[in-house]
Amino acid sequence: MSTTPRRSTTRAIASPWLAGGARTNQREKKRQAVLQTAARLFNERGFHATSLDDIAERLHVSKPTLYYYVKSKDDILLECVRQALAMMQAGIAEVRQGGGRALDQLQACMRIYAGIVLDDFGRCVIRIGEDPLPPPLKKELRRLKAGIDHEFRHLIAEGVADGSLKSCDPKLAAFMLAGALSWIGRWYRPDGTLTPTQIADQGIALLLGGVLAPVPPPAARKRATRKTSP
Amino acid sequence: MSTTPRRSTTRAIASPWLAGGARTNQREKKRQAVLQTAARLFNERGFHATSLDDIAERLHVSKPTLYYYVKSKDDILLECVRQALAMMQAGIAEVRQGGGRALDQLQACMRIYAGIVLDDFGRCVIRIGEDPLPPPLKKELRRLKAGIDHEFRHLIAEGVADGSLKSCDPKLAAFMLAGALSWIGRWYRPDGTLTPTQIADQGIALLLGGVLAPVPPPAARKRATRKTSP
Repeated sequence: MSTTPRRSTTRAIASPWLAGGARTNQREKKRQAVLQTAARLFNERGFHATSLDDIAERLHVSKPTLYYYVKSKDDILLECVRQALAMMQAGIAEVRQGGGRALDQLQACMRIYAGIVLDDFGRCVIRIGEDPLPPPLKKELRRLKAGIDHEFRHLIAEGVADGSLKSCDPKLAAFMLAGALSWIGRWYRPDGTLTPTQIADQGIALLLGGVLAPVPPPAARKRATRKTSP
Repeated sequence: MSTTPRRSTTRAIASPWLAGGARTNQREKKRQAVLQTAARLFNERGFHATSLDDIAERLHVSKPTLYYYVKSKDDILLECVRQALAMMQAGIAEVRQGGGRALDQLQACMRIYAGIVLDDFGRCVIRIGEDPLPPPLKKELRRLKAGIDHEFRHLIAEGVADGSLKSCDPKLAAFMLAGALSWIGRWYRPDGTLTPTQIADQGIALLLGGVLAPVPPPAARKRATRKTSP
């Protein structure tokens, strides 16, 4: 048997498989696409009314392919909620590190909060919440939420201390502000009349300044009374 | 065979069965007890984590007994949510019929809203919502919710028109106010530090008046500046 010597070459042979790093990246990208599609369907149809089949269909893949990226519908929900809360936490941490007046920081944090609540994953947090998830996972999400809530309380307490905010119970005020912002995730429809930015800007202004008309100063009031009295 | 003549009597014979009306009443009372117990369990443990067995156990009855009053867990949730929304609607209708200043009516409606959201059935509306329910039932509940939302919008528009409220988008403002009040149903714990009345009063005041410290009138600001300047 004659053996032809192998041609030694330094040229890399193009592998039909992706290199480790690129493969992980590709997988992560696809996993994110699964989560995003699922979140959008949950928000459109409700969590219970959405099946893994629906998600697979929307992505043009088979259900077994889906299982390569996610374990279950619960797993998807958990990941969507976890990512939304993690983004919120990171955004708030950045504002806090930047420092500045408490009121400015509060406003910036409210804007971050509203932005995430208006987004696919954030809407899942609000519209579905952790109720369908098993207790240990619920606990993890509650811990994340509590951290965000505490930042709001601290900021409000700082604002009361520096005189930019009214004297109030920071815990209750934090719940009212975050509550109104959270609720946006329930009623917001991407085809509505207001853009996400308009909703956030006008909504935050209403929450900070209230809805009551400003009371005119006493002098103006007296003038107004004089004008109408005979 | 001798026949003893029946003793004719006008005295009513006590029936071991309750008369029609009383029986219906008893059944309705028991059905309400089932709903109330279920709502409390849903709020404590979550809708998914509560089984019909849990509800039966808490009521010291068998599961077949439960089925005499309700068809399913979905049926219970629907009824809890429906009753909460109906109470809200009735309360708001009463305020509207009473008339008076738009701001006073708005405040009264917000108090009714908060009161129901702090209650067992109302907390179900907020914590669970209609997501687990089949589409036709969801639709019914959304119709009820939309009616309540419209009353808030009208009241805000009237308040803007009579000058007691700031110029604002009544739709957005209604969503922000009702949203913050709704969210109470998510965070409220009966063992918390504030009573339901304190939460409602302080929460409504924060929403109407905002959290910003009042800006002192120009004269006072000038005086304050003079004081600190050399």
